[in-house]
Amino acid sequence: MRPNNNSSKLALSPLTNEVNQMQSNPQSGSRAAQHASPNRQKPQREFEHVRESMHLAISMNKTEVIDSVLDDFSEGYFSLSYESRWRLLLGLAKEYDLNRTQVRELIKQYLGGEEAQLSGPEEEGLLASFYRIERNLRHALKPKYEALFERLNMHSGGLKFLSILRADILSILAEENIASLRALDSDLKEKLGTWLSPAALELHQITWDDPASLLEKIVAYEAVHPISNLIDLKRRLGVGRRCFGYLHPAIPGEPLIFIEVALLKNVAQTIQEVLWDDPPIPEREATCALFYSISSTQPGLAGINLGKFLIKRVITLVKRDMPHVSTFATLSPIPGYIQWLLSKLASQSKIAEDDMSQSSADRSGSTFQENLLEPEEEKAMMDISEEFAAGKNGMEVMLNLLTSMNQEWSKSAELLSVLRTPLLRLCARYLLQEKKRGKALDSVANFHLQNGAMVERINWMADKSEKGLHQSAGIMVNYVYRLENIEEYAVSYFSSGHIQASDEIRHYVEPMKKPEATTD
Amino acid sequence: MRPNNNSSKLALSPLTNEVNQMQSNPQSGSRAAQHASPNRQKPQREFEHVRESMHLAISMNKTEVIDSVLDDFSEGYFSLSYESRWRLLLGLAKEYDLNRTQVRELIKQYLGGEEAQLSGPEEEGLLASFYRIERNLRHALKPKYEALFERLNMHSGGLKFLSILRADILSILAEENIASLRALDSDLKEKLGTWLSPAALELHQITWDDPASLLEKIVAYEAVHPISNLIDLKRRLGVGRRCFGYLHPAIPGEPLIFIEVALLKNVAQTIQEVLWDDPPIPEREATCALFYSISSTQPGLAGINLGKFLIKRVITLVKRDMPHVSTFATLSPIPGYIQWLLSKLASQSKIAEDDMSQSSADRSGSTFQENLLEPEEEKAMMDISEEFAAGKNGMEVMLNLLTSMNQEWSKSAELLSVLRTPLLRLCARYLLQEKKRGKALDSVANFHLQNGAMVERINWMADKSEKGLHQSAGIMVNYVYRLENIEEYAVSYFSSGHIQASDEIRHYVEPMKKPEATTD
Repeated sequence: MRPNNNSSKLALSPLTNEVNQMQSNPQSGSRAAQHASPNRQKPQREFEHVRESMHLAISMNKTEVIDSVLDDFSEGYFSLSYESRWRLLLGLAKEYDLNRTQVRELIKQYLGGEEAQLSGPEEEGLLASFYRIERNLRHALKPKYEALFERLNMHSGGLKFLSILRADILSILAEENIASLRALDSDLKEKLGTWLSPAALELHQITWDDPASLLEKIVAYEAVHPISNLIDLKRRLGVGRRCFGYLHPAIPGEPLIFIEVALLKNVAQTIQEVLWDDPPIPEREATCALFYSISSTQPGLAGINLGKFLIKRVITLVKRDMPHVSTFATLSPIPGYIQWLLSKLASQSKIAEDDMSQSSADRSGSTFQENLLEPEEEKAMMDISEEFAAGKNGMEVMLNLLTSMNQEWSKSAELLSVLRTPLLRLCARYLLQEKKRGKALDSVANFHLQNGAMVERINWMADKSEKGLHQSAGIMVNYVYRLENIEEYAVSYFSSGHIQASDEIRHYVEPMKKPEATTD
Repeated sequence: MRPNNNSSKLALSPLTNEVNQMQSNPQSGSRAAQHASPNRQKPQREFEHVRESMHLAISMNKTEVIDSVLDDFSEGYFSLSYESRWRLLLGLAKEYDLNRTQVRELIKQYLGGEEAQLSGPEEEGLLASFYRIERNLRHALKPKYEALFERLNMHSGGLKFLSILRADILSILAEENIASLRALDSDLKEKLGTWLSPAALELHQITWDDPASLLEKIVAYEAVHPISNLIDLKRRLGVGRRCFGYLHPAIPGEPLIFIEVALLKNVAQTIQEVLWDDPPIPEREATCALFYSISSTQPGLAGINLGKFLIKRVITLVKRDMPHVSTFATLSPIPGYIQWLLSKLASQSKIAEDDMSQSSADRSGSTFQENLLEPEEEKAMMDISEEFAAGKNGMEVMLNLLTSMNQEWSKSAELLSVLRTPLLRLCARYLLQEKKRGKALDSVANFHLQNGAMVERINWMADKSEKGLHQSAGIMVNYVYRLENIEEYAVSYFSSGHIQASDEIRHYVEPMKKPEATTD
């Protein structure tokens, strides 16, 4: 019943997944499994019980021992259905926010105290009492549910439970935008951000010697290139490969984010080279460390940038062990490309069509009109339209080709040769120019750019898997990290949204400027 | 120049100490040492530089890369004299608290928004905007210096630096009570409390195989029974001994608190048995785990109860490895006993004297008057007064004996036999009945009682070291932890201040009630 926890590509049933998540607390695990049995009785009474333990967890005097209450609450929570969780969380957001009567009373005191403080001389006694009022007001403005979050943070296993709570909250908010719950979410997100400080995260090299319970998590959460079996996993942890994860001491045995690295002679152009280069090259011959997969494991930590220091720390570590590795690059998916392109093609071909149907005097009047295709691309597209896909203009032909059954276009040499140029060119445009709130529209691009990378190269037919064709017409991108420029690039991306790119890729979108001969 | 950092009993020069504390950041360590050289030039310019970097660290846009600014600030801070740090911290407290104009403006919006929200129907859009104002007000009420604390918390080495900052703040506040600085301290303390969540602390068994840099810290910070040399240290980590520390991942290589354990046949009555039982008994014969020393290493974490779960976790660990160990007890100092007793004796003997000098009709009129001695003790004291120490009454004789040069009383068999009964009896009273805000007056007693221990036994001449005689007339106390009662005792101590004690020790203060024969 926890829909937002299915980021894993391997089929783990929701229940298995849930039990996994509770392994840090084996006692509660067994009890929850019991509760979760389909023959559960009296769900309403159970709901009331959980609500009561939640209330105790918030309102008990803080000097009392509340460990057992918190255990009780989290165990009970796991036994609830998705609908009951929804009710419970909504109740938490609405009934445990502020005591607004108290806030108003303190505001009155505050305004009075401020006057006294501003008019009178700096008297320590007066100041102390003013600071006290200010502090009381600050505390009164803290929603009561913060007590629950703070107590769980101090409680063994509580941080993991908070991340599960937040995953549920996000999944509710995705269905319905509820102001009070959104306020609660932004509060919880802020707290989780400081509690999961990067300074407390431990970089751990994951190897075949690690416990199966940890490796199982890697298999379950690898979101980019699914791990097909144990042999595949062993290869990814073996010679010529590295895997690093960030662990937090309060969430043991489960990396919050992990990164897979291949040691290669050159920056790979296709994912096949990386996943199936058997046998790998001897490590002493490697000059490139290629980051080919980064996955975060906790949907409840969405929006908290845990990866910020990960790449920098991994680079430092690899460089220390292997000084002969001089290039640090990624081979990354472009998850939003085709979705963006299809919507662009649909709207523009529609505008072009409308335009054509008008009298010649009105033509090209739309300010939004733009032919996404260059003249020679338009011509090539129309040339093949009769045989392969109908369309009144090049863009519509391209749209129809790309949305045809089973990615038929990718199996025809002729279609590939016609589509290659516009697909690559528009991909460069998508990566370098399409923005949202001043940041790269593509989420993976945004991740690497804010970490200080540059866009180096796009690669044709780099990922021929169904997912790769579907997301990005099989195109993948290399981002490159230059240690000496990481800070500078990150700052300029943050402050002005400037995207660093190689001349080669810039050439796609600025046809006037030829790439220099010396570009490597 | 960091006076509050001398908790260590071994002579580390302040400079060495400071450099030690910076070892997590070797780069800054060397630069700081350089700055700290006595030939430093232009301290004023340096002060301005540090203040500037502090300002940047607080006010830079949060998306910019501030790591180098934070490094700059902490390096600069270490180069400052104690006086400059005082000025800087005072400036931080006064100039970086709130923007009160903004607070007032938001209060106005808040009161308006609240009215609209309370009168109108539950409309999500209106609610959302109200929550936003509420959140803005909450944020505006956060002092600006919180940004510095939060950024340091996220920064590598920052948590350690914050604990040094707070140690300096506490030492300033001990000299002068400044309202704004006290407000800053309470804010910082609250933050440190949540960032150093017990759930993130790692229990580590410290052994002779640990790095010298860590063992060095144990030697430096052992505050109860100083470690005299490497052989002494090796013994405390060897057969029949255990040492456990709490480490936080953001403060690597340095336990925040550590506890030393001796495995014994019986609960030790003197510290000499523990420190010099050479050779120790075979571990399989042990039935008692004795906690004989608990030291915290960070003066800047004062008031944050890091020990809360330590003892419970250590007991669980020892029990798992050695099921035959059934008794968990301490042999603890009573640091405040003699100080309390001397002040009591001085005031009461003064009152008694004044009373004697009044006419007989007025005698015993003072409601505060109390003879601390029983009649037979009073008599014994007066009997020896001629030979050993003058005094108009028993209390004054006792006071003079206890304050005589070089603890002469402890070297005379006759004096020991006279002092023994009243010293033990009054010690039991001090431990069981003397309170401050409902908690045990003695700090070590308070620590163990809030952890769920009971007062089991007091031991005569248990620590004959100069410090032991000085603090508690050589008396030490055994607190006992009974796993099955820990929770219950902690709750009852917290809620009502009730102190659990054995019949044996209660007998000292309730002479009517005889101890039962079966008490062990």
